Amino acid sequence: MPQVAVVTFDGFNELDSFIASAIINRCRKDGLEAFITTPTPVVTSMNGVEVTGQRPMSFVAEADVVLIGSGVQAREIAADDEMLARLVLDPSRQLIGSQCSGALVLAAHGTLGAMPACTDIKTRPFLEARGVKVLDVPFHAEGNIATAGGCLASQYLAAWTITKILGEDAARAVIDYVAPYGENEETVERAMRAISETPAMVAGP
Amino acid sequence: MPQVAVVTFDGFNELDSFIASAIINRCRKDGLEAFITTPTPVVTSMNGVEVTGQRPMSFVAEADVVLIGSGVQAREIAADDEMLARLVLDPSRQLIGSQCSGALVLAAHGTLGAMPACTDIKTRPFLEARGVKVLDVPFHAEGNIATAGGCLASQYLAAWTITKILGEDAARAVIDYVAPYGENEETVERAMRAISETPAMVAGP
Repeated sequence: MPQVAVVTFDGFNELDSFIASAIINRCRKDGLEAFITTPTPVVTSMNGVEVTGQRPMSFVAEADVVLIGSGVQAREIAADDEMLARLVLDPSRQLIGSQCSGALVLAAHGTLGAMPACTDIKTRPFLEARGVKVLDVPFHAEGNIATAGGCLASQYLAAWTITKILGEDAARAVIDYVAPYGENEETVERAMRAISETPAMVAGP
Repeated sequence: MPQVAVVTFDGFNELDSFIASAIINRCRKDGLEAFITTPTPVVTSMNGVEVTGQRPMSFVAEADVVLIGSGVQAREIAADDEMLARLVLDPSRQLIGSQCSGALVLAAHGTLGAMPACTDIKTRPFLEARGVKVLDVPFHAEGNIATAGGCLASQYLAAWTITKILGEDAARAVIDYVAPYGENEETVERAMRAISETPAMVAGP
């Protein structure tokens, strides 16, 4: 059963970790499961919510998908060599994604390489300072690596993960389920449009 | 400082409690604050995530806003007189809202009265069995009481709360901040449209 590590640090943004994990976990019956993965047994969100990790950091090396959440400590984590060493990533075997400031962690880890990335407006200058080209779109993927920007774009990171593992129909069904009632079709189409490859945007200014 | 209780039971849906609380908490600097409010010191989500409550159930009586989250145990809670008695609600003084199956709890509590409600597709028949008219829209409010349906409609419940307490400009700024990058304007307009009074829809079939 493919397993997803949603990496969640102290100071995390609840939107970024929980939208992705909860949407992906709608696929548990189809064999795809997400776990809140934390460097310490308990982490505290940017709003003071204490959450017990479901998996330790060592789970990252075993997971089929690793999604790096966002939070107020992303810059510190991106500068913490010990923490980065605990993130054992293998893009040849794993799907890897970041949400908002999680892109800083992927950049520091060397995972982004030369690919452009999506992030939030506050993280943008710090990512650009690392030489990463930041796109004016909420989602961008190249091969096995994806980045999303803006808290609510975490639904796109989830849709991409489900599409890659279970196919587009599964992703459409899940987004349809979580959509605001009566806004199902527009919500599904928006998500599928966001995660489809858009080379024109990548080449743009 | 106005305080929001996001009532969160065992078996809760992370999307429903955390989208509302995290969006509202973007207003902490403006004096509006949300707390995960739980009947036991720790609650476990429908996906096995253990969260420590930030406030006990007695906080509901003091809060300025009470939002009832959703989860897999809503029907049991709606039938649990002892639990309902712990939910001390006063719509004359408080803003009260429900997300998805939270509407069942409000209906059982007698808070909805004769107003129609929004909920999710799975809860709909159970709410209708209680004599509540269910609307084909993601959000409906009358006075101090609001209901939202479909997990991602919890952003509308947050936008309504912020609008009621801090005004429309504050709600627009927060939804703009959490929107998918580059989809800011459409996300803000969609939310403000969803929470604006739409009597035509209420009168509809």
